[in-house]
This record gives sequence, C-alpha cells and structure tokens, in this order.
Amino acid sequence: MRYALLLGGKRARPFLVYATGSIFGCTEEELDTPAAAIECIHAYSLIHDDLPAMDDDELRRGKPTCHIEFDEATAILTGDALQTLAFTILSEGPLASFAESQRINMVKELANASGAAGMCIGQALDLEAENRSVGLEELEQIHRHKTGALIKCAVQLGALAAGEKGREYLPQLENYAEAIGLAFQVQDDILDIVSDTETLGKPQGSDVELNKSTYPALLGLEGAQQKATQLFEEALVLCKRYPTIRNYSKTSHDMSSSATTRLY
Amino acid sequence: MRYALLLGGKRARPFLVYATGSIFGCTEEELDTPAAAIECIHAYSLIHDDLPAMDDDELRRGKPTCHIEFDEATAILTGDALQTLAFTILSEGPLASFAESQRINMVKELANASGAAGMCIGQALDLEAENRSVGLEELEQIHRHKTGALIKCAVQLGALAAGEKGREYLPQLENYAEAIGLAFQVQDDILDIVSDTETLGKPQGSDVELNKSTYPALLGLEGAQQKATQLFEEALVLCKRYPTIRNYSKTSHDMSSSATTRLY
Repeated sequence: MRYALLLGGKRARPFLVYATGSIFGCTEEELDTPAAAIECIHAYSLIHDDLPAMDDDELRRGKPTCHIEFDEATAILTGDALQTLAFTILSEGPLASFAESQRINMVKELANASGAAGMCIGQALDLEAENRSVGLEELEQIHRHKTGALIKCAVQLGALAAGEKGREYLPQLENYAEAIGLAFQVQDDILDIVSDTETLGKPQGSDVELNKSTYPALLGLEGAQQKATQLFEEALVLCKRYPTIRNYSKTSHDMSSSATTRLY
Repeated sequence: MRYALLLGGKRARPFLVYATGSIFGCTEEELDTPAAAIECIHAYSLIHDDLPAMDDDELRRGKPTCHIEFDEATAILTGDALQTLAFTILSEGPLASFAESQRINMVKELANASGAAGMCIGQALDLEAENRSVGLEELEQIHRHKTGALIKCAVQLGALAAGEKGREYLPQLENYAEAIGLAFQVQDDILDIVSDTETLGKPQGSDVELNKSTYPALLGLEGAQQKATQLFEEALVLCKRYPTIRNYSKTSHDMSSSATTRLY
C-alpha cells in the first residue's frame, strides 16, 4: 500500500481538494482528511487498472507497477485495502469542527464518484470500447465517468470540508470541475502521443497499442489541443462568474496556473 | 454485481445484523441498510478471492464464479464496485432516526473490519501461509482477520443501528461475535472435508488441494468438531451473561438456533 500510494504521482486530486477548500478559508490541515482519502481511491484504481486482466501495464510513475513489483494477488488486495482506507480516513481523520457534520456527505460523494455510477463503470465502458470505433459523444461519456467523476469529487470534498459555506457553492463548483476533468483527459490523451515514457512515467503510446479511442484520434492532434485549451478557458470563466469566488479569484487563478503546471 | 450479490449465499452476516438489532427492538426495515452494506463487502471479497491470482475457484454458491461467467476484468471491477456500494448504502440508506448519528460509526467499523487491519490482511496472511505448516495460534490469527472481523462487524452494525442503547452493549456483543466468528471458520474447515460439492456450492476438498492449514488438519476431525461446539457454547453463555440481553434471551436463543441451522 505504501509503495503504490506514496511513491510519486502528481497528486492532482488532493491538490483540487486543497485549492477548493482554501477558497473558503479552510487550512491545509483541515483538508488533509478528504485529500488523503481521494488519493487512496485514485491509487487503488491505478493498481487495478494496471493488472494483466485490465490494461496490463508494467510501468507506472516511472516504477514497476504493483503486480510486477510484488505479485497479482498482492496487487488485487492492495487495491482493495486502499479503497477501504479511503473510507476509514473519511470516518476517522481530523476535520474542522464545522465540517464534522459533512463527514457522511463526503463518504456519499466519494462512494458515488468511484463506484458503479462513476469511476468503475467508466473503466468498464473503456474496456468494452477497446478495438472498436467510438464517437466523440461516447468518448466523453466514458471519460466523464472514468476520470471526470473523481476529479469532480475532489472539488466537492474541498467544498464540503468548508461546511455550509462550501455547500452553497457546490453546483457552480461542479460545473468548473466537469470542465477541468475533461480537459485533464484530453491533455492526457495528447501527452500519450507527444510526450515520452520517461516524462510520463508510463509507456508512451500505450493508448495506440491498446487500440483505444482518444481525442487526438477523433479530432486530430491540433483539434485536441484546441479542445483542451477551450475547456481550460471555460473552467476559468466559471471560476470568476460568482461573487464570493471572484473575491478569491487572484488566489484561485494563481492556483489554477500552478495546478496546470503540476498537472501537465 | 447482481449476479454475484443476489444469486444465493447463506446471508450469514446480514442475519447477524438483524439478530443483533432485534435484541434492541429495531425493526427489519431499520436494519436493511447495514445488512445490505455488509453483504456487499462479503460478496466483493468472494469475487476477488476466487480470481485466478488468488484461490482460483471456478464454482461458488453452486454457480460459475464471476470471472468464469464473465471475465477477469469484469470480476475485478465488479468486486471493486460492490465494495464501494457498501459505503453508498451506509451513507444513503434509510436508518431509524436514533441511528442517524451512528451512520459515520458504521462506515468506520465496516471499513476497519474489511480493510488492511481486517479482512484484507487476513486474506494476505492466508495466501502467505499456503504450502507451509502453520500452528494453531497463527491459524486463529489468520481467521480472526479473514472471516472473524466481518462477522464481528455484523454484530457491531446491528448494535449501532439501535443508537445509544446498542453502543452500551458493544463490548460484550463483540466477545460473543468473536466466538461465533471462529466457530464459523472451524465449521467451514470441517465441511470442506465431510460435506460434498453440491451441498457446499463450491468444490469440496479445495483446502487440501491448495495445501491450506485447517483446524481438522491441526486438531483432527473430532478435535475440530469439539472446538466448534465449545465455541458455540461459549457464545451462548456470553449471550446470557448480561441483564438486558437476558431479557431477550428467548428470542436470541431461537435466533441462534435458527442461525445455526442456516449457517451449517
């Protein structure tokens, strides 16, 4: 569990928890609980996705994947236990007193985002779509579940950690999160083509090898880059639309830029 | 998920939730939420334990295991999503108003019982112990985690569903649950020898085939049977020791007998 969770990774989802919570004045310490929980879910999903029966990847974050470093049984159990750990953390981890009452809502959002209505069905749809042609609408549908749901959840958890104040802004934050979630995936598809294995920490070109539908395949490389930029701009506009959030827009924009640097 | 969760099974853990909750006067409807949640965890663990990289079983509850009926990737994802569903159910499912405040404690107990400190480490220890000799103490250690933790959790969830009243009796209920949890495993080991594949719904003799340490292997068949009976009697004594529970002892004893019939 330590190997898969702590050795590297961009920490994009925890970052979004911290970025969102800080808009409402939460401290980093108060946000550690949801940030750690969501990273456990993400780490578990990578371990299981890399298994031979799934994407069969041998390299992740520049290191051997969990089933290569250990064995398949250990990798399955490690993923299982990391998923559980997320819910242990949400139920036991420290939270600001005003967010205590939001604890069960955090469990609910994280479970909804990662289960059969979110990440898991996304991965199932993705596997099912291998080796056949997929249109833009279906591709978006896959990614809204496979990666978008958990990215959106990171923003939701950051808002819930702020108590009632955060809940009020949930709907617009969700629109923002949907835009960056999709942007993230488009960019991920682009990097699979234009980056290299060392920078990615996972094999470059693996989408093509698995015959996966991607945004560059559907829109061309330039079209995909335009789409990523457009979604990113859309997210920034959504950030600035609402008065309370606009008050924090300097911080928020700095964070978005910094997030972008760290994500891409 | 439907295939693995709904087609058969003894429902031993949900039964313990209902039996425990009913001691404190909870209705069946109020107990559906924790009962369904714990069965999701159990069902997920069976799917993953049956995978080729784990116990490699092809028959479960008299039907092809999930990865045989579908495929390995589907079985992994199905297990993952069933685990998540347990936490969705605990966070959203109906509960008696007095138990609402216990919801997050239910999440905590279920996560602790099923993760790296409970069921998952039990399965890891069990795999690690294959093909080598294991003493009685180590065997108990494995089973207290692998099956005992979740059986104990069923009783804990039933008590938590009763609100404060149930919490008060948690420590003694836990002793009771530890005794029946171990009894359950000893009996399971016995049945692997004395029963047949049709009755078990899984291949008879699979423990021997996987070279697993069992109670009959360590104590002899008769010794194991004595141990199961002794643990069962111990559990009944624990049931009757406490005044409030004694008031319910008629119901409780009927339930224990009925549970025994259903379990064995």
